[in-house]
Amino acid sequence: MHLLDAPHHDGSASYVPEGTPALGDVVPVRVRVPRTAGVRDVWLRTVRDGEPRLTPARRDGGDEREDWYVADVVVHNPVTPYRFFLDVPGGYRWLDGRGVHDREVPDAGSFRLTTHAPAPSWLGEGLVYQVFPDRFARSAAADARPLPDWAVPAAWDDEPLGAGPHVGTQLFGGDLPGIVEHLDHLETLGVRTLYLTPVFPGRSNHRYDASTFDHVDPLLGGDEAYAELARAVHARGMRLMGDITTNHTGDGHEWFARALADPSSPEHGMYLWADAPPGTAGTDVALQDDGLAYASWLGHGSLPKLDWGSDETWRRMVTGDDAVVARWLREPFGIDGWRVDVANMTGRWGSEDRTHAVARALRERITRERPDGALVAEHFHDASGDLLGDGWHANMNYTGFTRPAWSWLAAEDSGVPFLGLPTAVPRRPAARMVETMREFASTVPWQVTVRQWSMLGSHDTARLRSIVGSREMVEVAAALLFTYPGTPVVFAGDEVGATGLNGEHARTTMAWDQGARGGGPRWDAATLEVYRSLSRLRAASRALRDGGLRWAVVEDDAVAYLRETPDERLLVVLARAPWSGARLPRHLLAPGARPELLYGDLELTVTDGGLDVAGDGPAVGIHRLA
Amino acid sequence: MHLLDAPHHDGSASYVPEGTPALGDVVPVRVRVPRTAGVRDVWLRTVRDGEPRLTPARRDGGDEREDWYVADVVVHNPVTPYRFFLDVPGGYRWLDGRGVHDREVPDAGSFRLTTHAPAPSWLGEGLVYQVFPDRFARSAAADARPLPDWAVPAAWDDEPLGAGPHVGTQLFGGDLPGIVEHLDHLETLGVRTLYLTPVFPGRSNHRYDASTFDHVDPLLGGDEAYAELARAVHARGMRLMGDITTNHTGDGHEWFARALADPSSPEHGMYLWADAPPGTAGTDVALQDDGLAYASWLGHGSLPKLDWGSDETWRRMVTGDDAVVARWLREPFGIDGWRVDVANMTGRWGSEDRTHAVARALRERITRERPDGALVAEHFHDASGDLLGDGWHANMNYTGFTRPAWSWLAAEDSGVPFLGLPTAVPRRPAARMVETMREFASTVPWQVTVRQWSMLGSHDTARLRSIVGSREMVEVAAALLFTYPGTPVVFAGDEVGATGLNGEHARTTMAWDQGARGGGPRWDAATLEVYRSLSRLRAASRALRDGGLRWAVVEDDAVAYLRETPDERLLVVLARAPWSGARLPRHLLAPGARPELLYGDLELTVTDGGLDVAGDGPAVGIHRLA
Repeated sequence: MHLLDAPHHDGSASYVPEGTPALGDVVPVRVRVPRTAGVRDVWLRTVRDGEPRLTPARRDGGDEREDWYVADVVVHNPVTPYRFFLDVPGGYRWLDGRGVHDREVPDAGSFRLTTHAPAPSWLGEGLVYQVFPDRFARSAAADARPLPDWAVPAAWDDEPLGAGPHVGTQLFGGDLPGIVEHLDHLETLGVRTLYLTPVFPGRSNHRYDASTFDHVDPLLGGDEAYAELARAVHARGMRLMGDITTNHTGDGHEWFARALADPSSPEHGMYLWADAPPGTAGTDVALQDDGLAYASWLGHGSLPKLDWGSDETWRRMVTGDDAVVARWLREPFGIDGWRVDVANMTGRWGSEDRTHAVARALRERITRERPDGALVAEHFHDASGDLLGDGWHANMNYTGFTRPAWSWLAAEDSGVPFLGLPTAVPRRPAARMVETMREFASTVPWQVTVRQWSMLGSHDTARLRSIVGSREMVEVAAALLFTYPGTPVVFAGDEVGATGLNGEHARTTMAWDQGARGGGPRWDAATLEVYRSLSRLRAASRALRDGGLRWAVVEDDAVAYLRETPDERLLVVLARAPWSGARLPRHLLAPGARPELLYGDLELTVTDGGLDVAGDGPAVGIHRLA
Repeated sequence: MHLLDAPHHDGSASYVPEGTPALGDVVPVRVRVPRTAGVRDVWLRTVRDGEPRLTPARRDGGDEREDWYVADVVVHNPVTPYRFFLDVPGGYRWLDGRGVHDREVPDAGSFRLTTHAPAPSWLGEGLVYQVFPDRFARSAAADARPLPDWAVPAAWDDEPLGAGPHVGTQLFGGDLPGIVEHLDHLETLGVRTLYLTPVFPGRSNHRYDASTFDHVDPLLGGDEAYAELARAVHARGMRLMGDITTNHTGDGHEWFARALADPSSPEHGMYLWADAPPGTAGTDVALQDDGLAYASWLGHGSLPKLDWGSDETWRRMVTGDDAVVARWLREPFGIDGWRVDVANMTGRWGSEDRTHAVARALRERITRERPDGALVAEHFHDASGDLLGDGWHANMNYTGFTRPAWSWLAAEDSGVPFLGLPTAVPRRPAARMVETMREFASTVPWQVTVRQWSMLGSHDTARLRSIVGSREMVEVAAALLFTYPGTPVVFAGDEVGATGLNGEHARTTMAWDQGARGGGPRWDAATLEVYRSLSRLRAASRALRDGGLRWAVVEDDAVAYLRETPDERLLVVLARAPWSGARLPRHLLAPGARPELLYGDLELTVTDGGLDVAGDGPAVGIHRLA
């Protein structure tokens, strides 16, 4: 059976009315049932107050090739899991977010209708561009600033250290005025949101060890430079997102200093003082010089962990009038949202698990300050249980996008370590990528899926170019990034072919001088053109931003999928190597229409038998069919 | 690759030390890695404070055919998910509760180490026997009792109604003294626990519509008869479990009467008075005569839903000195635990979800009254999210056992409806059963798996005999029941071949007169012997009660699996039809040993090439290999 012969549903506008339902609403959901699937009847299964209910679906249009059915979801709970019962000869089937099943399956893969508002629309509208401030651009003012005592200076064109004691202290001296000077670059790339990793002062180049949340690092230009950057970004109609560590502070943080100095201080109660001696297996306990043991991020003494059982932590971080997460959303900074570092560990310690409460409170506070504020979680792993829709708007989707994409596109011999696993990135058939993407996507509501951050790399990973091994493969990967559901995020430098073998080694500087000359060893102008074109294409197509997703071809070396709204149908074909090509049904093409090649050179030929996809590779073809 | 060539881990004693770990413990977990799997190295992945950690495993014995590895789980959180990373050429694999994966998978299928104590050991030690009091046995005293106004009398040998207005009021008149008279039957069946559906008075034969929780229905013999039954049961070393509706009461309940009569009464606050008019789609709202609208079980006005947002509900049901769930655990009744009706809906209503809080509180209270008390949830559907180990000890495992077992063993033409689905029970290949069992089992800790209630039917389902269609197939099903991990539960009558086409129709009486004559149309003595033999076998084998599970054969018409402790290895072979037979590895047999056929007639032949399993069917063979 062809993949497109399978019944299909997702949360896009062809299947579910747009907008966020409220309690008490009745929402009709539709399902597409190709005749070839042999379905005699369709029922909707919802779970309400913990109990499944079956409701017969009504036929709702169709043609000689497929039937559409519709059934009503009663919105009685904040999140309603639902799936479709398909009556077929010889035994029913279930259709859920993972696909079609010929057996009973848990509810984990069910579709979900949620009453929680999705991320603000600006988040998914265009490209998010991630900047690691020390490595993006260095203004002339930077030369005048004294080198801090902890820093090991590097020249702008040096290769970043990938290991050793100085990975965190090697300072290139990028600053905020430098970013302002290069906003044209962002604009020509179609960037809609600039996301900056932390700008608070610390004792490291990454600044995840904040010594205060009250000010911007003077090394970056200080508060005024940040305000100026915000003004410049907003003036171009872009958004600005910050980066906050809710899990920990630096051990040089003013709060921690007072906590250490005075056990009766309010700050003392904000940290997790450990019973277990440091070094106790698995307790992530660190030791201060004076013998005080405390919980810390993965046992790093420089990052003491905040105690979310403390009212003081809540007050200072979230709920107080001048709480950290609120203050920076206001003028003169007016940032548009937060990316939350180590969100998956925030509030979790031993028998305490306050992560969801923290996420909900952060969202509530941010939304109170600015209704269109965004809250995105760093969550490197399985975020299923943490993305119910009422807390984080979205996550950095390493599991549902980055890992599976890499696993399909990696060069055989990249040798690049695989995000914390004791192995190099494997190269697997496309079916593994698709199964993984489907399974992880099925764990969250569609409204979250289309806003989750899709990344081909970040400041915590090796560089895409080093993983896939060639410019051609970077193009295939970028085409996936810009056409798969989710918010595309580009780590500054990927668009000019930056290389790097691990998270630290890949924090390369931008070679602006080479850019000004039209290219160079660290400025691949051809790759930049790929990113610019794909970014423009996505901005011009609602189907690529919000459309449903149907897989059409999944071969070892090639995939094809449809992105569809009620008005638009795009076919995306991606091949990592030469393959056999494929024939797709003729009816995908609107009557009387010709396919329009929007991007790439992978051909689509209309024949009497169907739409014939060429077997070239590596190659990309993005076609408008309707 | 043979199924037994796959690396394996489960929570049984060969892999995880026995006992419940405490926070701070370090627990070594072992994994079996056959050489044929091509594994070069093994790592343990745990999730701690929301963050995965990889720890190298150490080789820990083995032989020329397989290696064992061991790694330490640090018990820092109450529940620790873990799985194994297997380094193999061409791309790593994950081993979790669902099996071996060649891609990234969510944590839902991870093994789980829990600090929560499992169900008391008596629960899993032997058979649980379910009795629906109106249908089990009628003592002479029953004749003297007046018929209640709601009842439609039936003669003992009548066929129960399967539909219509009188299904709930047809009264056969079974009582508690009747049960006492037939405890010999339970004893010869190897029953260790008698579970009675509700004994509180109501206006129905099922008594799930209690009018009080303070007394036993006089129709059943009243409080004294219940105390007498408890004494008789305990005197035989058996346990007694009750049945409580925490989701609702009857509309004739004394609390609801006062709630209706007086809106200022404490009882008024114990129910959910609805804003929505009755009949509003999906709100399960019913209407009292005087116009008061209230939430009810699936909209049935006779079953008003309790509000667990009310302190009074908590006090009367759980926390008060004389709370319902506590009182009956005390003398003169001293019941040993509760089965909780509609546990999956209890405390869930609209935007409120207090189910876990209720489950935890019930368990705490029960355990306080008697440390060996048991708490079992009715949960007809996906209980994954509700069986974290800290609330319900176990559930009635319809999803993980009953449904998949039926789906493999059903006759082609049973026509029996499939537990709330708009279809007859399908007949599927064994692979579907095994995938379903593995997937649902993977969602709960092993300690829960081995105590979950395995049922081939209950008072809410059709009868096994009517589903599988023959005595021979009942035997195959019963062999699965008694040899698969979990607590076997038999609904009274299944052991003598009772028939019935839906939950109500299947609430047949016990034909004691036919039993006394050695058999009859409603007393299949041969089936009874099957149940008695299998029950004895399970009681005699620790491997069948607590041993690990490895699937050895999964063909369309046959399955075979090993149940193993460090000292014992049993091979269970079940065939629903003739099949091709299979060859198993010779080394499964202890050196110098011969296979011992413990039950059934499906032969196992030792040859030079291996252990040859015969292809008969329907057939059962249970063999001791070591």
